Amino acid sequence: MSILVVGSVALDSVRTPRGEARDVLGGSASYFATAARHFAPVAMVAVVGEDFPAAHRDLFRRLDIDVSGLETAPGSTFRWAGEYADDFNTRRTLDTRLNVFAEFRPRLCAAHIGSEFVFLANIHPQLQAGVLSQVSRPRFTVLDTMNYWIQGTRESLEDVLRRVDGVLLNDEEARMLTGETHLLRAARAVLELGPSLAVVKKGEHGAVVVARDFLFAVPAFPVEEVVDPTGAGDTFAGGFVGALAVSPDPRAEDALRRAAAYGTVLASFSVESFSLDRLVAATREEIEARMAALRDLVRF
Amino acid sequence: MSILVVGSVALDSVRTPRGEARDVLGGSASYFATAARHFAPVAMVAVVGEDFPAAHRDLFRRLDIDVSGLETAPGSTFRWAGEYADDFNTRRTLDTRLNVFAEFRPRLCAAHIGSEFVFLANIHPQLQAGVLSQVSRPRFTVLDTMNYWIQGTRESLEDVLRRVDGVLLNDEEARMLTGETHLLRAARAVLELGPSLAVVKKGEHGAVVVARDFLFAVPAFPVEEVVDPTGAGDTFAGGFVGALAVSPDPRAEDALRRAAAYGTVLASFSVESFSLDRLVAATREEIEARMAALRDLVRF
Repeated sequence: MSILVVGSVALDSVRTPRGEARDVLGGSASYFATAARHFAPVAMVAVVGEDFPAAHRDLFRRLDIDVSGLETAPGSTFRWAGEYADDFNTRRTLDTRLNVFAEFRPRLCAAHIGSEFVFLANIHPQLQAGVLSQVSRPRFTVLDTMNYWIQGTRESLEDVLRRVDGVLLNDEEARMLTGETHLLRAARAVLELGPSLAVVKKGEHGAVVVARDFLFAVPAFPVEEVVDPTGAGDTFAGGFVGALAVSPDPRAEDALRRAAAYGTVLASFSVESFSLDRLVAATREEIEARMAALRDLVRF
Repeated sequence: MSILVVGSVALDSVRTPRGEARDVLGGSASYFATAARHFAPVAMVAVVGEDFPAAHRDLFRRLDIDVSGLETAPGSTFRWAGEYADDFNTRRTLDTRLNVFAEFRPRLCAAHIGSEFVFLANIHPQLQAGVLSQVSRPRFTVLDTMNYWIQGTRESLEDVLRRVDGVLLNDEEARMLTGETHLLRAARAVLELGPSLAVVKKGEHGAVVVARDFLFAVPAFPVEEVVDPTGAGDTFAGGFVGALAVSPDPRAEDALRRAAAYGTVLASFSVESFSLDRLVAATREEIEARMAALRDLVRF
């Protein structure tokens, strides 16, 4: 039930209606791993620069995240800056400096080749495919992507989509990938590209899991205050893959439904602070309490 | 358990990505009554012009809707024309001709004064208040409103809000009414204005019911094809109030949750055709089948 995430570790500068944070720990692999570690051992494969604060690496270690695959390369760490509009629904990227991330070519060490659950965060689909080729016998693989790869590297993306079990997208991406404007039909068209599962993330409106033989809709967990939505999707993925990793059968419908609910719950912690602060502080008891509250939220 | 709706009966011209309809039967009272009649006897109080087709009135009668309060006034029927963007999420009004609706001053006849369940569709809040004053002993009252009244007649709206049990709004209206950008806090601020219940309609993302002591979230029922979203909110209200009308205790949490689920299901039929066509054709068996499917959709 070991989990591997390949993605970014970044220093983010974020402005939201609730305040501002500068050069704080972020990146898809960071959010994913910090969520998934609640369920099963997780290892991250990523790259940072020489300026990456030792305290961040120590934090990962303290959370029992395997950082043996977190390489340090000459140069600066990937930096992203963005700001959110008043309703949190529109995000504007102010600055992207790939730095060492531009040359990221993930190579798995022996310890990670046997990973059973793999999350391919939002990187070039050829790199995602390269990672898959290195994993010996994955049990369940999920990838995330974005409009940039859908438009610019569609062929590579379609290649890797044929090789994964699940794909995470937002509704705009699902529509862009398939040309279908109706969300349900778009998600089904995604399944025809290969994955047996499409998870459509809808931000404050929750998520929909579309499989060949079932549909599952889960609302976002209603938090009292959204501080920063950055990383919510990767946190969802961490809860989702993490919960699957400890299921007897990760392909069973009930396991997939419960996993998506865990994803929603983990994401609800993530948005309550800048960076990983609230997610780091979340206890297993708090997670289970929100799972119970989520169940009650949708009961009728 | 008699239900009264006061609102509009209109002739709509609608253009959507799925086609176009001209001068078809619409209006808040029409959609509401056509949904609510599945549950309990419903009477509509509205006004049409001399050009209103007899076939439409006959349709209402065939559906056992009490149209004794559907007045015919000299002049033309209220006409609305609008079009929806490709994703159905943006609606543009092309033309509004109030015609006889401009002089609508609802007067209840003796048969309707004793109505137990009252839906005040989206009309001037002073007219809504006037209707409430005429109903002798309502058991449960719900009102709908819109940004136009929130901005232009806030004082009247606040007056009538103090006198109803429930209010239907979309998220933008909830934010406008309260100045709160966070949806949950906005809905709670609405409750401080008087109603014990705020139902926030989110279109394709479903609805959230906010009460003083519970929260209920329900996704939209996933239909295979959206043809025309016009009237979905009023149809939701018809299913909601209709289901409450046959509950032993319409203020009980479980009754309110189930009623909102019925609202969602009824709305799902409404959007599958132009005008009331699909809603008219819906059978009680189909409604119950979608209720079961909705339960399955959110199960985890």
